[in-house]
Amino acid sequence: MPAEPDVVTALVARLRPDQVLRGEGERDAYAHDDAEWAEFHRPIAVVLAETTGEVAATVRLAAEHGVSVVPRGAGTGLSGGANALRNAIVLSLERMTRVIEIDAAERFVVAEAGVINDDLRTAVAAHGLWYPPDPASYRISTIGGNAATNAGGICCVKYGVTRDYVLGMTVVLADGEIVHLGRRTAKGATGYDLTALLVGSEGTLGVITELTLKLLPLGGREERAIVGSFGSLEDAGAAVAAISAAGIVPSALELIDETCLRAVDDWQGLGLPHGAAALLLSTVDEVGDVGAGHAASIALLMAEAGALGVEQAAVAEEIERLFLARRLAYPALERLGPVLTEDICVPRTAVPEMLGRIRDTARAHDVVIATIAHAGDGNLHPLIIAPEGDDAAKARAKRAFDRIVDDCRALGGTVTGEHGVGLLKLPGARIELGDRVLAMHRDIKAAVDPRGTLNPGKAF
Amino acid sequence: MPAEPDVVTALVARLRPDQVLRGEGERDAYAHDDAEWAEFHRPIAVVLAETTGEVAATVRLAAEHGVSVVPRGAGTGLSGGANALRNAIVLSLERMTRVIEIDAAERFVVAEAGVINDDLRTAVAAHGLWYPPDPASYRISTIGGNAATNAGGICCVKYGVTRDYVLGMTVVLADGEIVHLGRRTAKGATGYDLTALLVGSEGTLGVITELTLKLLPLGGREERAIVGSFGSLEDAGAAVAAISAAGIVPSALELIDETCLRAVDDWQGLGLPHGAAALLLSTVDEVGDVGAGHAASIALLMAEAGALGVEQAAVAEEIERLFLARRLAYPALERLGPVLTEDICVPRTAVPEMLGRIRDTARAHDVVIATIAHAGDGNLHPLIIAPEGDDAAKARAKRAFDRIVDDCRALGGTVTGEHGVGLLKLPGARIELGDRVLAMHRDIKAAVDPRGTLNPGKAF
Repeated sequence: MPAEPDVVTALVARLRPDQVLRGEGERDAYAHDDAEWAEFHRPIAVVLAETTGEVAATVRLAAEHGVSVVPRGAGTGLSGGANALRNAIVLSLERMTRVIEIDAAERFVVAEAGVINDDLRTAVAAHGLWYPPDPASYRISTIGGNAATNAGGICCVKYGVTRDYVLGMTVVLADGEIVHLGRRTAKGATGYDLTALLVGSEGTLGVITELTLKLLPLGGREERAIVGSFGSLEDAGAAVAAISAAGIVPSALELIDETCLRAVDDWQGLGLPHGAAALLLSTVDEVGDVGAGHAASIALLMAEAGALGVEQAAVAEEIERLFLARRLAYPALERLGPVLTEDICVPRTAVPEMLGRIRDTARAHDVVIATIAHAGDGNLHPLIIAPEGDDAAKARAKRAFDRIVDDCRALGGTVTGEHGVGLLKLPGARIELGDRVLAMHRDIKAAVDPRGTLNPGKAF
Repeated sequence: MPAEPDVVTALVARLRPDQVLRGEGERDAYAHDDAEWAEFHRPIAVVLAETTGEVAATVRLAAEHGVSVVPRGAGTGLSGGANALRNAIVLSLERMTRVIEIDAAERFVVAEAGVINDDLRTAVAAHGLWYPPDPASYRISTIGGNAATNAGGICCVKYGVTRDYVLGMTVVLADGEIVHLGRRTAKGATGYDLTALLVGSEGTLGVITELTLKLLPLGGREERAIVGSFGSLEDAGAAVAAISAAGIVPSALELIDETCLRAVDDWQGLGLPHGAAALLLSTVDEVGDVGAGHAASIALLMAEAGALGVEQAAVAEEIERLFLARRLAYPALERLGPVLTEDICVPRTAVPEMLGRIRDTARAHDVVIATIAHAGDGNLHPLIIAPEGDDAAKARAKRAFDRIVDDCRALGGTVTGEHGVGLLKLPGARIELGDRVLAMHRDIKAAVDPRGTLNPGKAF
C-alpha cells in the first residue's frame, strides 16, 4: 500500500477523519460531475467541509502542498467543471446546508453554498418570497454550484439567470483568505463588481462558501400554459419569433423535438401528437385579464404559425400534464443510452436553422440527437445518445458535439448558454473568446490565483 | 510659451487638428465632471475621438508617452470619475454618437458610447423597444458613461441598473488593443463575465467604445402615480416598508424631504403641502385591473401609515404634475448655492433612521441638506448646499459629507448606490472594501493595465 500523501495527513490532522474520504471507491464517486464524457482522474482525497473556516484550511493546505482544489456542489454539472484532473483534491460543500438569514423586508436570503436550490425555494417561500433561477437540476443541485456556473433554467426567459440574483458572497481565495464581496442593499456601485466576476468563474478564482441572494415577492403571479404541436421545426420557430415580435415575454418558452416526443411516448404512452416535428410549451404568469390575454395571443400566434393543435391550461394539475413531456424528456432519453448533453445559445431567430443543422449532423454522424430547447432564449440542448458500450458510436457522438458547436458559432451564437465551459467546451470557448480576451482571462486568473491552486484547466 | 508636449504633437499628427483641444480655456472646460468639489487639474490636451480606432490610437500614444488617459462621456458624473488628475489627457467620446444596429427580434441595440441615453431611448422606441435605465441625467448623459459608472435611476427599483442591460461591448485596452466582450444572444456562460467587470469600473480597465444593450418591449405598461405627503420621515418610511411587505414592486418609489419641498415651493409656488416632512412619490405600471389594484393598495398603505394626504393620477399630464416637485428639486436647490451631491444606499428599512441622522448632521455642521431618495431601493441623495463663495461653509459641507458616509456604513449600507466611487468616495470605499478586497482590485488593475495608463487613482 503506497504511503499516504502528506497533504492528506495534514488534512486529517486539521479536520475530523470522517471529513476526509480516502478510499478508492469514495474517491471515484467524486472524480467527476455529470460530464463523464470529459477527462477525469481519481482525486487524492475528497474533503467534506462543514464551515467556511474548513474550506479555507483545505485550500491553504492544498496550496502549501502544491496540490490543486476542485470545488464541488452536488456534482450535477454537465461540462466537467467539477471533474478532478491530476494531482487534485475534491472539495465538496454538500454539508454546508444552512440557510443563515431570510430578510423579508429587504428581500434577500443568506445561505451556505451547499443548500439545494429547491430547499432554498421552500425556505424563502415560507416568508412569502421567491428565488426564480430554476435549472433543470433544481431538485438536486446546490446554489453554490448554480452560482459558480451561472446556471440558467426555464424561467430565465423572463426572470434572468443566477447572476441576476447574486448580491454578495463569502469567498475563500487561493491563499486561504476569506473575503466578503458585494452587498446586502438593493443597489451598490463600490469598486469592481467582483461578485459578478466570481459568478460563472467555475471555481477558478475562489471557492464560494456563502451567498446573499436577491428574492422577489412570491405572490402576484398566475400561471397559464399554452402548448402547441407543429408539423415542422420552421413553423415552431415562426411561432417563437411571432410571440417575441408581439412584445409578449412568456415565463417559459420551451421546445422539444420529435425524437424527444417519441422517446417519451415509447416509454410512458402519453398519447402525444404523432407526426409532430416539435412541441412548443409556454407559460405566461401575469394575473387576471392580462395573463388571459397573453395566453390567448400566444395560442392565436401558434395557430397562425401553422400549429397542428394548441392546448391551454390555467389549473396547476392541467399545466403539469401539458408540461409532462418536457419533464420526462431527459429521463426518457437516458433510457436509450449515455447522453452527451450539448448546450449552445443562438439568436432566437436562428433557432429553426440551428435545429435543421442539428438534424443534418445526426444523419451525417449516424447518431441519435434529441433536442430540448429554451426556445425563447435561443438556448438549445441537443442530447446526443450513443448506445451503451458502443465506443465507435461514442466517438461519432463527440464529433457531432463539435460540429454543433461550430454551427452555433457560424450562426452568431455562443458555445455555452448556461452549463459553463468546464472541460467539454474548452476548444469552442477558446475560439469564441479569441487570443487577446483569453490572455485577459489568464492575466486575471494569475493575479487572483498566482499558484494555480483553484480548479486549474477549467473555464477558459 | 512653453513647448508643446511630445504626446500632443503625436496626437495632432495622428488625428485631425480639430480633434485635439489645446487651448487653456478648452482644456479647463474638460478638467472635471460635475464633481468640481473633488480634485482636478488642467489636462495636457483633450481628444475628441470619432472612432474606436482613434480611441485605440490615443490610448497607445498616451501609454507610449507615459501619460494617463481619463475617458469621458458627457461629464455629468457626480463623483469625479472623469476629473483630470496630473499628467493626463482627457479622452472624450462625445462625438461617437452612432446607433449602429437595432434588432427587434433579438431585442438588442448596438450603439457607440457617446450616444445620449435619451437619444437611444428615442431610437429604439421607433422599433417598439424600451431601454429602461433612467439616471436623472438621461437627457444629457451618455450610455458609455452610464455603463462605466453602472448608472442607476428611478425605475431600477423594478427594472434594475445599467449592468442588467449590458450584453456586450467593444473595449480599448490599456495597450491600445481593441477587444469585443460579451455576446448578442439572450444567454451566455463562456468564460469570465468581463462585461460585468468592465461595467462600473470607471474607465480604469478599458475604454468602452461600443455597447450591445438588451431591450424590453415598449408596450404592455400603463402608468399610474400615487403621491402621499407625510408629517414625519418615520411615517413615510413606514409606508415604504408596508408597500414592500405587501409584495408590490412599484416602477418608482421616490422621496423628497421638507427642504426640497420648500426650495421648490419658494421658487415655483406650486402650492405644495405645508407642514409635510416628506413627499413619497410612486408609480406602478401593470396594465388594467392589476395596476389599478396596486395603485389603490399603495394609496391605502400610505393612508394607514399616517399620510396627511394622498393623490392619484392615471393620465400622463396629471402624473407629470404630481412628479413636478421631484423633477424640480435639484434645480431648485442649485439656486441656493453649489450642491455637493451625496449618494449612499442603506437597507430599505433603515431609510427613516438614516434620514434622521442626516437631519442631525445638517444641524451639527450648520449646513443645509436636502434629501432626494430612491426610497424603494434605500438609495439616498442628500444634497449638501454651501452658499456661493463661503469657504468655511464649503469645509463644513465636506465634513457633513464624510459623516453621512460613516452613518451609512454604520447602518449596513454601501458608500455609493449608483454614482460610483470616482474621487469623492475613495476613503469610504476603501473602508467598505477592506484591505484584502482592495488588494484584489489592485491585482486585477495591474493585470489588465500594468502601466496604470487608464484613469489611475479612481474607483478604489
